[in-house]
Amino acid sequence: MNDAHQQELQALLDAEPTTTRRPTVPSLEERLFRPVPILDHGFVRLIDYMGDDAAIVQAARVSYGAGTKSVRNDRGLIRYLMRHRHTTPFEMCEIKLHVKLPIFVARQWIRHRTANVNEYSARYSILDREFYLPALEHVSVQSATNRQGRGENVPEHKAKAVIEALRRDAMTVYDTYEHLINDAGDGEPIREGEPQLARELARMNLGLNYYTQWYWKVDLHNLLHFLSLRMDPHAQFEIRVYADAIADMVKDWVPHAWGAFADYRVGGSFFARQEVEILKALLRGGDPDELLPASDLSFRERVEFRKKLEIGPPKKK
Amino acid sequence: MNDAHQQELQALLDAEPTTTRRPTVPSLEERLFRPVPILDHGFVRLIDYMGDDAAIVQAARVSYGAGTKSVRNDRGLIRYLMRHRHTTPFEMCEIKLHVKLPIFVARQWIRHRTANVNEYSARYSILDREFYLPALEHVSVQSATNRQGRGENVPEHKAKAVIEALRRDAMTVYDTYEHLINDAGDGEPIREGEPQLARELARMNLGLNYYTQWYWKVDLHNLLHFLSLRMDPHAQFEIRVYADAIADMVKDWVPHAWGAFADYRVGGSFFARQEVEILKALLRGGDPDELLPASDLSFRERVEFRKKLEIGPPKKK
Amino acid sequence: MNDAHQQELQALLDAEPTTTRRPTVPSLEERLFRPVPILDHGFVRLIDYMGDDAAIVQAARVSYGAGTKSVRNDRGLIRYLMRHRHTTPFEMCEIKLHVKLPIFVARQWIRHRTANVNEYSARYSILDREFYLPALEHVSVQSATNRQGRGENVPEHKAKAVIEALRRDAMTVYDTYEHLINDAGDGEPIREGEPQLARELARMNLGLNYYTQWYWKVDLHNLLHFLSLRMDPHAQFEIRVYADAIADMVKDWVPHAWGAFADYRVGGSFFARQEVEILKALLRGGDPDELLPASDLSFRERVEFRKKLEIGPPKKK
Amino acid sequence: MNDAHQQELQALLDAEPTTTRRPTVPSLEERLFRPVPILDHGFVRLIDYMGDDAAIVQAARVSYGAGTKSVRNDRGLIRYLMRHRHTTPFEMCEIKLHVKLPIFVARQWIRHRTANVNEYSARYSILDREFYLPALEHVSVQSATNRQGRGENVPEHKAKAVIEALRRDAMTVYDTYEHLINDAGDGEPIREGEPQLARELARMNLGLNYYTQWYWKVDLHNLLHFLSLRMDPHAQFEIRVYADAIADMVKDWVPHAWGAFADYRVGGSFFARQEVEILKALLRGGDPDELLPASDLSFRERVEFRKKLEIGPPKKK
Repeated sequence: MNDAHQQELQALLDAEPTTTRRPTVPSLEERLFRPVPILDHGFVRLIDYMGDDAAIVQAARVSYGAGTKSVRNDRGLIRYLMRHRHTTPFEMCEIKLHVKLPIFVARQWIRHRTANVNEYSARYSILDREFYLPALEHVSVQSATNRQGRGENVPEHKAKAVIEALRRDAMTVYDTYEHLINDAGDGEPIREGEPQLARELARMNLGLNYYTQWYWKVDLHNLLHFLSLRMDPHAQFEIRVYADAIADMVKDWVPHAWGAFADYRVGGSFFARQEVEILKALLRGGDPDELLPASDLSFRERVEFRKKLEIGPPKKK
Repeated sequence: MNDAHQQELQALLDAEPTTTRRPTVPSLEERLFRPVPILDHGFVRLIDYMGDDAAIVQAARVSYGAGTKSVRNDRGLIRYLMRHRHTTPFEMCEIKLHVKLPIFVARQWIRHRTANVNEYSARYSILDREFYLPALEHVSVQSATNRQGRGENVPEHKAKAVIEALRRDAMTVYDTYEHLINDAGDGEPIREGEPQLARELARMNLGLNYYTQWYWKVDLHNLLHFLSLRMDPHAQFEIRVYADAIADMVKDWVPHAWGAFADYRVGGSFFARQEVEILKALLRGGDPDELLPASDLSFRERVEFRKKLEIGPPKKK
Repeated sequence: MNDAHQQELQALLDAEPTTTRRPTVPSLEERLFRPVPILDHGFVRLIDYMGDDAAIVQAARVSYGAGTKSVRNDRGLIRYLMRHRHTTPFEMCEIKLHVKLPIFVARQWIRHRTANVNEYSARYSILDREFYLPALEHVSVQSATNRQGRGENVPEHKAKAVIEALRRDAMTVYDTYEHLINDAGDGEPIREGEPQLARELARMNLGLNYYTQWYWKVDLHNLLHFLSLRMDPHAQFEIRVYADAIADMVKDWVPHAWGAFADYRVGGSFFARQEVEILKALLRGGDPDELLPASDLSFRERVEFRKKLEIGPPKKK
Repeated sequence: MNDAHQQELQALLDAEPTTTRRPTVPSLEERLFRPVPILDHGFVRLIDYMGDDAAIVQAARVSYGAGTKSVRNDRGLIRYLMRHRHTTPFEMCEIKLHVKLPIFVARQWIRHRTANVNEYSARYSILDREFYLPALEHVSVQSATNRQGRGENVPEHKAKAVIEALRRDAMTVYDTYEHLINDAGDGEPIREGEPQLARELARMNLGLNYYTQWYWKVDLHNLLHFLSLRMDPHAQFEIRVYADAIADMVKDWVPHAWGAFADYRVGGSFFARQEVEILKALLRGGDPDELLPASDLSFRERVEFRKKLEIGPPKKK
């Protein structure tokens, strides 16, 4: 599958650029069609984009007209919009990516519904012998505290055994897949006279670490929401690396929007009603070791509160 | 509101084009930023676009891989996709428009939910004295047969009276609006010492024929769905003219997709299960005057069936 | 329009209740089909609902399985979900409302795209002479500080004049509408021999304060998002009263979800990255009059920061 | 995972029914909470529903008011709505299902974006040793004509070998999974002192035929769209059986809507612009063996045209 498609994208790279009156972002032009490698066989590749920081401002000025006059410059207006959750102007930018990713990552990704997707179909086409294996330093045990995440790393020699076991099974299931498909790649059987099992059946033997790929198109508002969830430390490492690579593009694409996002969404913290009350009391000189236990915050919330404000643990009596 | 915004768009028109590696469509480049007049004060203006016919094909080839080999050229593949309702590749193109339209048209338009919108806000800004009045030849009576549409034209001298009544009221409500707002346009009161009523309140006095405007961004699949409903003869004339103007752009933008849409969506007809059965019988030599009354099609369905196949009315006995 | 429909709803009220194994919420059963009056002619009426607090928990336990074991009770789990923005379980509840509301309110409301809507069509049907007029105490001037909102009340005698002007115009435009429609209510013309203007045309003469109505169906997650925006003090008063009435229903419907929403969404505050840094410094004994001016927060953000923590204005030197 | 959840659902079954004023559908009440077995380990289980045929009519009568007067009964109105693609009233019904299904089926299913989903998370919980194996009669070769489907059955003894290969690999990958997880089910390690690999990592070794489960909630309009695509003979058998089981519920739930759907969506056929022209010519006595080759229909379209009208192959000369 890859060869024809890569030739096509290479042709786009080799082609003479054309002229346009649409907004262009020079640093994104540099990135067009070039795959950014992710994990062992994956990539993210910029295919197209629409709009820039100015396009956000342009739409906002239509919406808020007189309301935007007081904000003198684009950066200020974009920060105002982000701060006050005026989200629709951010929908006026759009990006299209070509992504190659393990199926278990694709299964998390696809839960973001407000996007357009064309995925490689294993009913039509034959999947390659390409599967994800974690690097040694990413082989970790189940977290004891976080019910969904990873804890400490597995010692190196044991991590090697884990990877080896994963590799062995991935090879085994592909051998079977290849045998059942019985296709030399040109539609002709490898073993003459033997059946060529329907691809939609044979593919069910492959593991969730096999790579798939898709075109994914999304507007900036929904992309930022995706990034806020998938760049989060609680997200699985294997999707976080994709989010980080896309974040790099967004920084180049819409630097003001990115800055506002970093300050007002990702970098900040939400404080619950009770937490705000405690904050006010602390600022009036209250003692956290008294205020927190007296509140109706749960134990875990009290720990989180201290952590996000770097208050330190309660003093022993 | 318009002046600053129009200057901005004019600046885009005057600016030197830049170079890009993204797909460009020369005939759309010509259309960028230039308003296409609609009705008496409205317009549709192309602001940006992403993708072209080739982008549809590019995404489809990722999805259907081997399945697309047999279709040799782009046009054939696009027609295949449209015919078989493989809709996702059409979502890979995106268009952004600036539209000025009467509020009653905007209310129909906004029902298409899968789109991005930034509308002019009459809470922030002052609306202009701009309202829609139908042209003489579009003043018609309520249809007797179609419960939602227009019938015959109103005789000219009476149509003039209709338009005059609409104009008079539109002027009256704006006079009141202007009086209540009491704003010289620079925030200063016209009548010193008098209150400046909140804009969000004053605007409620304006009629549904007042013009609003918005930025509207949508993918090609959803745009074609919009067009199929809004270009339809049953759609209200005042939205149909917008749909027609956008259709003109789409023809330039993605000619193969447009051709397929014209043949497989707009130009064709759906035949119900019973209708297909009758068709088969007719092709075997059956008599419509016997088959239709014997079917469980309603009277209106039988009329429609004859009409779409140009069969003519039942013979009198 | 109202009579037939109200008879139908009354019939539902009069009918014998049936039995069901689905979750039922007794206090919502009491509310079914009974209109809650809003503004001068509007209402919100509960038509149907699906799920309850337990349904949120039920779905979450499928999703997070082992992850939910540590949370012993339903209330705790729901609060955990809300706090960590695990939003999908809240989508498992659904509510259907019948709402009568001024058109300018409907235009704000419809911007919430993830909902199902069936609105009264003025192409098919004749609108009643029903329009919204603000009560004396809600007639206010344009706010000087908030670019989209209301400021002080207009003095009573002037407010009376405002209302009178709005009423006069509303009556005028309806007189014209009625004249143009020329329909005695049974399809027969009032003025014999005169045209009956198409309804889709005549309605354009009516003002944005005329009432429309719709069925609106939405899931709990999207409803809470709607409420968080529309109960906000920055929302226009005329939509806030609808949001408040719906909030009353939600409190009865899913009390745990409502409590979590009140604490973790509506009652709390987001602090930006810079604000969190300042908070830490303040808790270490820093002086707001030094820290805030030294930060890169804008003037307005510094004011907001002091306000949400009740810090008081900077000390004069 | 299943035990606790099944106990909970059993408790709902055992509980005394309550009374409600909401529309109830007796035949659906019978189905509530009872799993309908699908494939070898899957099921579809009705969890909740909102609305019925009357609810569609109720919403339509608000929308189309006077336009619905001429249609006397509910069945007629529902058929009218379906025929004319007035889709929004069908969105007023909602259904919630609990589904257990192979991951490769889930991956097709999730592409229907307008639905609410809570899926079992293999990051939090341990997957069971449950995988799908096709029955003998469903083991087929890749279709030669349909690029994505199945052709003839594989001879029985070879089909047995296929199933055996799939079973062997499924057992192998689960053995490894179990070994890596190293969890006795209560969080304690099976092999003391050995690492318990993070679940989010270990699960990647499992195959696409492993079962997952989810809660899925969708409105009737989107459900019918799902069914029209997934009941289609071109859909993969393994998702078709789920669609068929859900269709059975829909027939009970909204019989008029189902009937209309069967006649106007599933049972009928779309004829392209060119096909309608040919139809007209045929009805005027034209010869298909002349008309079809002279048209610009592709070879495949001509074959399909003959097939859907049972015209038979071209006559040899």
